[in-house]
Amino acid sequence: MKVNGKHYRTIWMDNETGEVSMIDQNALPFSFEIFIAQNYSDTCHAIVTMITRGAGAIGAAAGFAMAQAFVEGERGERRGANSGNYTRDQLSFFDNARKEIEATRPTARNLFYATEKVYNAGIKSVENAVREAQWLADQNIADAKQIGENGSQLIKNGSRILTHCNAGWLGFVDYGSALAPLYIAKEQGKEFFVYADETRPRNQGARLTAWELQNEGIPHKIIPDNAGAYLMSKGMIDFVIVGADRIAANGDTANKIGTFEKAIVAKEFGIAFYVAVPFSTIDFSLSDGTQIPIEERSEDEVLTYSGPDSEGIMRTIRMASPGSHALNPAFDVTPARFITGFITEKGIIHPNEISNFYTE
Amino acid sequence: MKVNGKHYRTIWMDNETGEVSMIDQNALPFSFEIFIAQNYSDTCHAIVTMITRGAGAIGAAAGFAMAQAFVEGERGERRGANSGNYTRDQLSFFDNARKEIEATRPTARNLFYATEKVYNAGIKSVENAVREAQWLADQNIADAKQIGENGSQLIKNGSRILTHCNAGWLGFVDYGSALAPLYIAKEQGKEFFVYADETRPRNQGARLTAWELQNEGIPHKIIPDNAGAYLMSKGMIDFVIVGADRIAANGDTANKIGTFEKAIVAKEFGIAFYVAVPFSTIDFSLSDGTQIPIEERSEDEVLTYSGPDSEGIMRTIRMASPGSHALNPAFDVTPARFITGFITEKGIIHPNEISNFYTE
Repeated sequence: MKVNGKHYRTIWMDNETGEVSMIDQNALPFSFEIFIAQNYSDTCHAIVTMITRGAGAIGAAAGFAMAQAFVEGERGERRGANSGNYTRDQLSFFDNARKEIEATRPTARNLFYATEKVYNAGIKSVENAVREAQWLADQNIADAKQIGENGSQLIKNGSRILTHCNAGWLGFVDYGSALAPLYIAKEQGKEFFVYADETRPRNQGARLTAWELQNEGIPHKIIPDNAGAYLMSKGMIDFVIVGADRIAANGDTANKIGTFEKAIVAKEFGIAFYVAVPFSTIDFSLSDGTQIPIEERSEDEVLTYSGPDSEGIMRTIRMASPGSHALNPAFDVTPARFITGFITEKGIIHPNEISNFYTE
Repeated sequence: MKVNGKHYRTIWMDNETGEVSMIDQNALPFSFEIFIAQNYSDTCHAIVTMITRGAGAIGAAAGFAMAQAFVEGERGERRGANSGNYTRDQLSFFDNARKEIEATRPTARNLFYATEKVYNAGIKSVENAVREAQWLADQNIADAKQIGENGSQLIKNGSRILTHCNAGWLGFVDYGSALAPLYIAKEQGKEFFVYADETRPRNQGARLTAWELQNEGIPHKIIPDNAGAYLMSKGMIDFVIVGADRIAANGDTANKIGTFEKAIVAKEFGIAFYVAVPFSTIDFSLSDGTQIPIEERSEDEVLTYSGPDSEGIMRTIRMASPGSHALNPAFDVTPARFITGFITEKGIIHPNEISNFYTE
C-alpha cells in the first residue's frame, strides 16, 4: 500500500546485503520510520519487541531471519554460495538460529511455517534459503490480495464493519487479511464505514488500523473495546472481520486478546463473525484450539503507555495505580462454533470445511 | 474507608460554610487531593469533569449541590434561615440550579433522586435542604454497608471475583456497592482474589479500584477489558460483581460501558453476574432499559490519556492515530436476563422481584 504516495511493503530483504528492512510499527502512527535488521538476531529482536507484528508480517520476518542466518553462517565459514556441504558448526549455527527465531513469539503459526520452509530450503543452499524467503513474502501478498477479492463480496454500499486489532497491510507484507477485503471494496467504489476496536493494551486498532484506514481514505471511528456490545445492541454493526495468528484443524482460532469476547457478543446478536486468513495460518497438526500456546506478555504493556504529548515529544506514562500488577495474555482462542466463515485465498469457507483442504 | 490511616468520606459538606469537599478522583491514584466546591456551580463542574464520579458519589454530590443552591439563593436575598417564603427570584434561582445540576450527567439515577429529595426539602426551608442532603449522604453509607453485609455471603475463601469500573467507596460516600461485599468479607477474614477490569477509556478499574484494593490489602490484578472471556474460559473467575448507574423497573441495568459485554460473556460460561446497588438506583418510572438515556462523552477521553511520566510529571499523550476520530458512549444497558441477582440493602434479589419493592 502507499504511504505519502510511495508504495511500501511492510517488510523486505535486500539479497545483496542480507539486510531486512521493515516499517517500525512501534513508531507508527506518530512517526514513519524504517528499521533495518543487519542480521537474524536484529530481526528476532524486531519480532519480540513488535517493531514488526501481525500474523503475516511475523511470518515474512521469520522467513527472512532464517535466510539471514544462512547468509551469516556461510560468511562466518568463508565458503562459496551453493556449497550444500555445511560444516558441523554451521549446521549447529542454523539449528540454534531456528530455535531462537521460533522462540520470539509462540502463538503465531506463520512464524513456524516460514521458519520451517526456509530452513528446509537453506539446508540445500544459502541461495535457496534466500529465494524461499522472498517467495514466501511474495506469496503472502498474493494470498492477501486474493483474500481481499474473496472477502470484498461481503461488503455492500452502506455496510458497517467492526474489526479488532490490526490485520491490515502492516500485519502482512501488503494488503492484509481482515482489512484486505475493505481495500479491494474501496477500489471497487463501494462506500462503507469501519469501527476499529482500540485493542488494548497495545492499541493496534487505534494506532495502526486507524492509520491505515486514514491513509486509504476509508471512513472510520475508533471505539473503546468495551463499546462492542453497545454498538451491536443499537444495530450499528453489520458484521465483524478479524485476522488470526493460528487456527487449529477444527477451526478454533487464536487471535489478539478480546477476539473471543467479540465473537461471543456478535453471536448473541446474530451478527456474522468472519476470520480472514491465508491457509498458512492453519496448523493442521493441532486437532483443536486447546493445543495452541498462548503468549503472556509483560505487565508493563498494560500499566504504562507511550505516545506524543501536545508538543510531539514521546512520553511514557503510567496508566494504572502504582503498586498494582497486571495480567497480560496476548491472545485468546475463539472456538469454531462462533465463527461464521474463514475468508481465505481459496474462498469463504465454513469451519467444518477446513479439514477438506488438508494436504501433507 | 481509610487513606494513610485517616478515615475519609468520598464527599462531604460543611454546614457552616456551605463548602462541599471531595476527593479529587482525577488526581487519584497518583496524588491524593481534596477539591473544594465553594458553590453549587463548582459542584456541578466537579460532577461534569468527574472530579467526583460513581453512582452513589454523584447522588451525594447532587444533593449537596442542590443544598448549596438553597444556601446561595437565600444569602443573595439576605433573608433569615427557615423563612419558607421565597421570592419569585429565589424560586427561579432554585429551579435553574436544579436544571443545571440535573444536566451534569444524564444517566445516573441517584443524581435525579437526590436532587428531587433535596429540592422538595428545600422548598420548606434552607435548613431543611441541608439536613436532607446530609441525611442522603449518611443513608448512602448505611445502604452501602448493608449491601456489603448481604453480598459478603457470596464470597468464600479462594473466591476469584471479576469487577468492572469502580463501584467502590470512591463511587459512593463510603464502602461502595460492588466492592462493599469485598471489604466486609475482608473484615470477616476471608481470603480471595480480585481481577479488576482496566475499564477504558477512563481506566477507573486500573486507577481507582486497584488503588482501593491496594489500600485495603486485598490481592488483585488489573486486566485489559479484552481479557475477560479468556480468563472465564480458563476457569479463573467464579463470579462477577459490578455497580449500576440506573436500573429500570424490569431490572435492565445501565452501567459503565463494557458491563453488557461482560454480562454476555459471563452468561456464555455459566458464571454468575451480580449487580450491587442501593434501591435509590432503581428508576421505577422506567418500564425497561430502552428508556434510560445514555451519555456520550468527548472523544478526547479515548484519543488521549493523562498520567505521570517516570519522573512523576503529569503528561497528556495521544493514544491513537492523529486525524482519526472516536466514539465514546459512557454506558450501556444490560438486559435483566443476563443478571443473576441484585445485591441490595434489602437482600439479594432476583430481577423479577424488583417490582415487589415498588413504593409510591
